[in-house]
Amino acid sequence: MKIAIVIFDKFTDIDLFLMWDLLNRVRVADWEVRILGERDVHLSATNIEIKTHGRIEEANDADAVLFVSGQGTRDRIIDENWLAKFKLNAEKQFIGSICSGSLILARLGLLEGKTATTYPTSRKVLESFGVEIVEKPFVAHGRIATAGGCLAQQYLIGWVIENLADADWKNLVLKSIQPVGEGLFFDDAEDLTKLYAPLAKTV
Amino acid sequence: MKIAIVIFDKFTDIDLFLMWDLLNRVRVADWEVRILGERDVHLSATNIEIKTHGRIEEANDADAVLFVSGQGTRDRIIDENWLAKFKLNAEKQFIGSICSGSLILARLGLLEGKTATTYPTSRKVLESFGVEIVEKPFVAHGRIATAGGCLAQQYLIGWVIENLADADWKNLVLKSIQPVGEGLFFDDAEDLTKLYAPLAKTV
Repeated sequence: MKIAIVIFDKFTDIDLFLMWDLLNRVRVADWEVRILGERDVHLSATNIEIKTHGRIEEANDADAVLFVSGQGTRDRIIDENWLAKFKLNAEKQFIGSICSGSLILARLGLLEGKTATTYPTSRKVLESFGVEIVEKPFVAHGRIATAGGCLAQQYLIGWVIENLADADWKNLVLKSIQPVGEGLFFDDAEDLTKLYAPLAKTV
Repeated sequence: MKIAIVIFDKFTDIDLFLMWDLLNRVRVADWEVRILGERDVHLSATNIEIKTHGRIEEANDADAVLFVSGQGTRDRIIDENWLAKFKLNAEKQFIGSICSGSLILARLGLLEGKTATTYPTSRKVLESFGVEIVEKPFVAHGRIATAGGCLAQQYLIGWVIENLADADWKNLVLKSIQPVGEGLFFDDAEDLTKLYAPLAKTV
């Protein structure tokens, strides 16, 4: 299974790293997570330099494609050359976004006739694209999903893991980041070691 | 206000980036967040390269010092040269850890006579250092705090922001990452723009 996370300059740090970290806890054969961009390095909204593993065109062959968010989405949604590189297939690929990443899904024509969610500060732009917005953390229609509010990545990534691995991996991965005493407990220690097993495949 | 986040090789990605992102949303004068290490670049547990802003000795002059976690803590707690570089002052500095970062606090003598929390897989090692563990997401005694479970960074960073900025900033920053419809709402859009104001000071 190949999962592509698409980044760009001025992405929101936590919107890459929460999904990246969660997805990298899965230990199933040939599970591969790659950060894609249009350059070797992209700068986050807080000026963190992140090296990419490949170019955005790779997303077209992935089993799941996830778009991050951030101020940088405003430049992406008016960049026709960048948008044209995506030839995604909503019949075969799981495609999702966090926060303002939904603006990119809309511009790629993936939200036509669907309800969606987004970050509060992106609602008006998404509405201007003709999308009906709902005030929910996570909205999925078939293989297309949008999530709104950084921590709603838990719903989005849970959906990806359940579909590409199974519900047990979803539950264990999501449990592993909960606060101690509030979803994660000391008695879970042995189960958690499954998340640190040697990688099935090194990216 | 200067806040130091201490990293090392094999740190857990989300345990740096959740606190980093939250702390960078605060907009008060001279608020500065710096990632410190013993080299120019450290590698995360998933092989992400992160450039540091300075060396760990800088932590000794910070208003708050936060230790991340990850498999790498096991090497740090037996590295006497590394530990000796910290001359922290629990009377003047706010000092905290997420997950296994508590092992470093213990080795620095900061948890003597105190209860603390940690990640389930680190409980036994922390107990072996003579610390009384409690199954809670966040434990603070004066200016020393430990948090357990990645998402418990919300308690830890809320504590730092409330003490170094104020409760309004704490509440707004923590609200800004909640899932839409579950703590964050479309009507919050205007308030959220405060988090994207120009930086009071560029790091």
